[in-house]
Amino acid sequence: MIRARDFSFQPLARLKGNQARLGRIHTPHGDIETPEFLPVGTLATVKAMTPRDLEGLGVQGLLANTYHLYLRPGSERVKRFGGLHRFMGWTGPIMTDSGGFQAFSLGAAREDGVGKIGGIFPNEGQSEPARTKSGEKLAHIDEEGVSFRSHIDGSRHKLTPESSIAIQQELGADMILAFDECTSPMAGYEYTELAMERTHRWAVRSLEARTNAEQALYGIVQGGEWEDLRARSVRFISELPFDGFAVGGSLGKCKADMHRVLDWTVPHLSDDRPRHLLGIGEVNDLFEGVERGIDTFDCVLPTRFARTAHLLVPPWTPGVGRRGTLNLRHARYLDDQSPLMADCHCYTCQSFSRGYLRHLYMCDELLAYHLGSLHNLHFLLELMRTIRRALASKNFSELKQRWLEAASGAEPDPEEDSSLS
Amino acid sequence: MIRARDFSFQPLARLKGNQARLGRIHTPHGDIETPEFLPVGTLATVKAMTPRDLEGLGVQGLLANTYHLYLRPGSERVKRFGGLHRFMGWTGPIMTDSGGFQAFSLGAAREDGVGKIGGIFPNEGQSEPARTKSGEKLAHIDEEGVSFRSHIDGSRHKLTPESSIAIQQELGADMILAFDECTSPMAGYEYTELAMERTHRWAVRSLEARTNAEQALYGIVQGGEWEDLRARSVRFISELPFDGFAVGGSLGKCKADMHRVLDWTVPHLSDDRPRHLLGIGEVNDLFEGVERGIDTFDCVLPTRFARTAHLLVPPWTPGVGRRGTLNLRHARYLDDQSPLMADCHCYTCQSFSRGYLRHLYMCDELLAYHLGSLHNLHFLLELMRTIRRALASKNFSELKQRWLEAASGAEPDPEEDSSLS
Repeated sequence: MIRARDFSFQPLARLKGNQARLGRIHTPHGDIETPEFLPVGTLATVKAMTPRDLEGLGVQGLLANTYHLYLRPGSERVKRFGGLHRFMGWTGPIMTDSGGFQAFSLGAAREDGVGKIGGIFPNEGQSEPARTKSGEKLAHIDEEGVSFRSHIDGSRHKLTPESSIAIQQELGADMILAFDECTSPMAGYEYTELAMERTHRWAVRSLEARTNAEQALYGIVQGGEWEDLRARSVRFISELPFDGFAVGGSLGKCKADMHRVLDWTVPHLSDDRPRHLLGIGEVNDLFEGVERGIDTFDCVLPTRFARTAHLLVPPWTPGVGRRGTLNLRHARYLDDQSPLMADCHCYTCQSFSRGYLRHLYMCDELLAYHLGSLHNLHFLLELMRTIRRALASKNFSELKQRWLEAASGAEPDPEEDSSLS
Repeated sequence: MIRARDFSFQPLARLKGNQARLGRIHTPHGDIETPEFLPVGTLATVKAMTPRDLEGLGVQGLLANTYHLYLRPGSERVKRFGGLHRFMGWTGPIMTDSGGFQAFSLGAAREDGVGKIGGIFPNEGQSEPARTKSGEKLAHIDEEGVSFRSHIDGSRHKLTPESSIAIQQELGADMILAFDECTSPMAGYEYTELAMERTHRWAVRSLEARTNAEQALYGIVQGGEWEDLRARSVRFISELPFDGFAVGGSLGKCKADMHRVLDWTVPHLSDDRPRHLLGIGEVNDLFEGVERGIDTFDCVLPTRFARTAHLLVPPWTPGVGRRGTLNLRHARYLDDQSPLMADCHCYTCQSFSRGYLRHLYMCDELLAYHLGSLHNLHFLLELMRTIRRALASKNFSELKQRWLEAASGAEPDPEEDSSLS
């Protein structure tokens, strides 16, 4: 087994009384000041954003999806183009997931109609059916790996720890993930235990399959919402020679479950390696994750929200809904000449009014999705910068308290689209 | 009747042997070096482009659509936001059309299934039906104006010369157009004559309705494809105190008809006022229009083509189709690592491969429409810069010959989507 040659995590400061920490991840394509949010570029593009837009926003790293890129345009093709960085024109750090989440998102989770945290399903591609027209399940899991049908053309494929690592090596990201099974919050103890043990065997196979020392390989802790399973998983995974760790799988049925899972897990991961929380990007969760020692996050939330006219604002903004957004399609913005968000320095808020943005959304203009994504990404990245400054000046707890208290006062928005919440 | 206070056209150079000229249009929001192509921002946005993108491309002016903006978000609302410039964040010159073309595009033309030049229908909104579900015609023309039903919600509206000018004054563009009826290429001589005479009466009413001296008002020459009608129309319109002129209406059933219409019309327009050709933007037509004395053009072609993966390239490019584009959805670009267009300095060509662009188009990624529009607009604007340089150095005829000869050698592309050609 090899370790990554040009990859490291440097802890820079640590808060007392909790797990929060400042740090720096070094990768062959540059450093990431942590804690940080990584936008998702599912198909080798952060939707509606150019690489120069991302640079302008100060994006430090991206996450791309192995499953999607394996199907389109194909990882061998990406390799022929010189790897993901050259293919998509992004020169900074990239992380790829393992494709294992698709065993979840195309299989059991679709049947249950739920996601990582009960009811939340923040990842791309959620609208594809769980079954083919003839009723066949799209994914099947066995010891070897996950057999599935493409959501695009129904073709049959199999992902295993070995093929996932091979594909991720072809894609050429700086950080790659061990192949794992992400169980549903609806799964029982027995199935979660069985899947966790299989994921442990897959973790060893992932490590053995890896041949490229230019990439950092992250191990993934599973174990669902059970303390003893999480304890067993973190013990097993943290003793393997991974370059970093990710917390995956079901994070429980509610936010409190997620916090417990992190409390059971993160303190047992060694301090000298980075910790990633998969698929989480709501503001409150970012605060809770940072407090519990998470270094990086990824989520499609900012870009997906932007495409549905849900634009992120601070929780003390008049009219904000429980998910921390204004719905710009609302008639109340018809004649609103103020910027989307006061004091925001993004191009969208500096240049346009709420009324103009509403007009673009109501006309389904492509510019709406671009301007909305630009703002939502800026918002989360600026929040992470604020969090890093607060960690440096030991004001993190006050910052978190201010945001979360304000958020708890937000009224539920009767118009909220339940498919997003 | 008033004339525009802060608007002028300065002819800078004139070719011998034809009508081609270099010039400069001065407007309250800046100058336009002519001949120039004005991108179309139908709904107060050039689709998928920010104002800063347009500035980066060197766009000198835009055309926005009165009909569309009247319906959404409403011209009174745009006025409350400080006019189109402030509403959409574009500080350069803007032209608005009169809405009259909708009498054509929602009425007769839809019945005939044709456009300005037989078979070509380059304007936005062509996919709306000519009739309501109950079979009612969407538009009705009488002496007063055009009664129509909104293509959005079926609500009833009437545009007259007076209301069109009032709406255009609320929108606040630098250049506005007299209200006219654009007849179909399928219309006979008698109807075209009747419509032309009505358009002449509407021209006088448009002039009388105009009260804002900050805007230049263009008169529109009609008369279809008949030499005597065009002669009468140009005589009538050119004697009115318009600040500029536009050539509108049916330009005949083929390209040769359009050239004849311009030959009959443009030489009779006074030299000291700018001339706009409405809705024309194919490369060959730009050359033919410039040669015949047109100063400005507008067309949705570059942005619409970009949304269907048709990307403009010079006619000597291997694989180019008759419409001057490569269809990036073609499988031949799957592994093509070369830029879309050699020697193009646009961001798209400088940053990405054909293979990556094809991938974005095949996945219907929003970034494809942005990058494609960026290139197509850059292509036409660069062509106009090349044309202006050639006019200055008296090489225009050689430049035109080189492009048109190469274009005539292009093979028809069997995959061409007939709805676009």
